[in-house]
Amino acid sequence: MQRADNGLAFMLRYENIAWYEDGKVRILDRRVYPRKVEFVICNTHQEVTQAIRDMVTQSAGPYTAAAMGMALAAYECKHMTEEKQLEYLLAASDNISHARPTTVARMSLITGGCLEAAKIALKNGTDVSEAIVEYTVKANNLRYGKVNLMAEHLVDMFPQNGTVMTQCFGETIVGMMLKVAKEREKNIRIFCPETRPYFQGARLTATVCNEMGFDTTVITDNMPAYVMKKENVDVFTSAADAICLDGHVVNKVGTYQIAIAAKYTGIPYFVTGAPDHGHPTIDTVKIEMRDPDFVLQAMGVKTAADGLKGYYPAFDITPPELVSGVVTDTGIYTPYDLHSYFKDGNMGEYEMVI
Amino acid sequence: MQRADNGLAFMLRYENIAWYEDGKVRILDRRVYPRKVEFVICNTHQEVTQAIRDMVTQSAGPYTAAAMGMALAAYECKHMTEEKQLEYLLAASDNISHARPTTVARMSLITGGCLEAAKIALKNGTDVSEAIVEYTVKANNLRYGKVNLMAEHLVDMFPQNGTVMTQCFGETIVGMMLKVAKEREKNIRIFCPETRPYFQGARLTATVCNEMGFDTTVITDNMPAYVMKKENVDVFTSAADAICLDGHVVNKVGTYQIAIAAKYTGIPYFVTGAPDHGHPTIDTVKIEMRDPDFVLQAMGVKTAADGLKGYYPAFDITPPELVSGVVTDTGIYTPYDLHSYFKDGNMGEYEMVI
Repeated sequence: MQRADNGLAFMLRYENIAWYEDGKVRILDRRVYPRKVEFVICNTHQEVTQAIRDMVTQSAGPYTAAAMGMALAAYECKHMTEEKQLEYLLAASDNISHARPTTVARMSLITGGCLEAAKIALKNGTDVSEAIVEYTVKANNLRYGKVNLMAEHLVDMFPQNGTVMTQCFGETIVGMMLKVAKEREKNIRIFCPETRPYFQGARLTATVCNEMGFDTTVITDNMPAYVMKKENVDVFTSAADAICLDGHVVNKVGTYQIAIAAKYTGIPYFVTGAPDHGHPTIDTVKIEMRDPDFVLQAMGVKTAADGLKGYYPAFDITPPELVSGVVTDTGIYTPYDLHSYFKDGNMGEYEMVI
Repeated sequence: MQRADNGLAFMLRYENIAWYEDGKVRILDRRVYPRKVEFVICNTHQEVTQAIRDMVTQSAGPYTAAAMGMALAAYECKHMTEEKQLEYLLAASDNISHARPTTVARMSLITGGCLEAAKIALKNGTDVSEAIVEYTVKANNLRYGKVNLMAEHLVDMFPQNGTVMTQCFGETIVGMMLKVAKEREKNIRIFCPETRPYFQGARLTATVCNEMGFDTTVITDNMPAYVMKKENVDVFTSAADAICLDGHVVNKVGTYQIAIAAKYTGIPYFVTGAPDHGHPTIDTVKIEMRDPDFVLQAMGVKTAADGLKGYYPAFDITPPELVSGVVTDTGIYTPYDLHSYFKDGNMGEYEMVI
C-alpha cells in the first residue's frame, strides 16, 4: 500500500481534513479555501449532515465527513444499551446519507460500512468511534489504491506533451493523476474552468495543479469550447458524483456542456470512477436543486438586480454517447458495457468488505 | 420613424448614456450597473478611446461613445485652421476606431460617418461638434429603425408561449425584441447566462428583461446546455460584434459554446445584425485578448490562489454550421449566403449616407 499511503499523505490536505476527535468533527471549509483556511466544527452528527448539505466540503470530502459523522454518532450514544446504540447509529446513517439527494447511494455505502464496523466493535466490546475511524482509514487507503490505478489508466490517455481540461474538483483523482503524470514525466498543461457558482475549479482544482508544479490556467465557464479549439486541448476529464450502469454520468453542473463541446471539437471525454451499483439507470438519480439565489451572487457580491430569479441544479447528466471511456481501477470501459466491471468481483470505489 | 423613436426613448437609458456636452463626454459605467449608477467623464477624445478599451460601455454602447468622442475631438480642435481640424479629426477617428481590435471595422464606419458630417459643417461654417451630434442622432434613429425590423423577424421565430435563451448584452435588439414580443402578446420566458467575467448577462440583459416585465432567470455560464434540455428552451439568440460575409459570427466569448449546445440539443441559434462589409471572411477578424488576471476575480473579489494564470479572449467565433439564421432588417438569411443582403443596396446596421 505504499502508493496509496503517498496518496493519503497528499490528500490529507484536501480531503481528509474532515476528521473526528474527542466528540467533535472538524471540517475544512472548502467554500472559502484557498483564500481563507477556516474550519467548521460539528458537535453533533446532524451538524455534520448540515455541513455536507451546506457544501462546507465537496467532491470526495463528504464521504470522509460522513464516516466521521458516524464516529461522532457513536460517541453520542456510547452510554446507551447495545441495542439502542445500533438503533441510534442506524438513524444516524439514514440522516447523514440523505444529506444531499444526488449522492444517497454512495453515501449509504460509506455509512453502511461504518455500521458494520460498529457492530463488530460492539460485539468485541471495543470503542465504537475508534473502530469507525479505523475502518475509515482502511477504506480510504483501499480507495486511494483504486484511484491510483485509475490515474495510471487515465494518464495512459494523455500524450507525452499535451493539454488537459478538467471540470470542478475531483481532488483524489486530480492529485493522483498529477502524481502519475509526474512519475511518467509527462509534460501536461492544465486548463481549469472556474466552476460557478462555487468556483471549485478556480479555487481548488487550480490550486492543487499549481502546487503540484503544473502549468495551470483558470478560465471562466463560457470558455471551454473556444479553449479546446484554440489551445489544442487533448483530453477532457472529470470525476463523477454517480456513474450509472447505463452509462449516464452525473457530475457538477457544466460537465454536460463541456462534454458536448468536447464531442463537437473532436476531443475525448474520460470520466474517472467506478460504476455505481446503486444506480442501474439514470432514472434512479435525483438531481439536487439548490438555493436559486446563490447564482445571483459571486464570491459573496450580488451580481443581478433585485427581483431577478436564479436557477441552480447542482449537477447535470451526461449521456453515454458523450463519454469516451469510464476510467476505473481495472481499466477503461465503454459506457455501454459497465456491467463488465463487476464481473470479476470488483466492488466499486466506495465499497469495502470488512 | 415613430417606432424608432420609441426605441430611442427606451434605449437612452441603456445605450445613449454616452453623450457629448460642453466639451465633455459622459458615459454610464456599465461595469458596475445596475448595482451602482456611476458615470465616467472623458475630457479628451483619447479618454473616450480608453473608456471604450476599459469596457466602461459595451455592446452597442461603444458605437455611440465613439461618435461622441468625435464630437469632443471637434471641440478640441475648433480654433485650428480648417485643414488642421480635418487632420486632427482624421487622427481622432483612427485613434477611437482602434479602441478594441475586434471592432475596428464597425467603429471605422461610425467615426468615418462623423468625419463626413464634420466636412460638411466645415464647408458650411457651422459648429462641427453640433453637426456630429446631430449626425449621431440621425444615424442612431436609422439604426433603431433597422433593429426594430430585425426584432420583428426575430420574434417571428418565437412560439406564442415559449422560452428564449440570450447571451451577453445586445441592448438595442434585446429591448426591441421584448417590445415586439409584448406588442404581439407573446408569452416569453427568458434565461440569461450571467456572462463571465463581466456579468453582462446577469447585470444588464436580465435587468432589461425584468424591467420590461418578462419572466427572467439568471443562470451561470456552465448551465446553458442543461437548461436547454431540462427547461425546453425554444430559441437561442444573440447579437454579434461582427458577422463575417462567410457566415462566421464573432460575439462575446461563450456564444460558440452555447451554439454548440443548441445544435446538440436541437435548438435553433439566431444571430441578429447586418453582415459586415468590412469582414469578407473570418480571417479578417482579430480576437481581442484582454488582461488574463481579470478572470481570476469575480465582482472584484479574487477567486484563485496567487500565482495562477488566467486566459481572457473577449470574443469567440461561431462557424456558419452552428448558425440557423442571420436575422437582419430585410429578413432572415442563411449564413452561407450573406452577400444577398447587400444586393438591394442595403448598407448594414451602422452605415448611413449623409
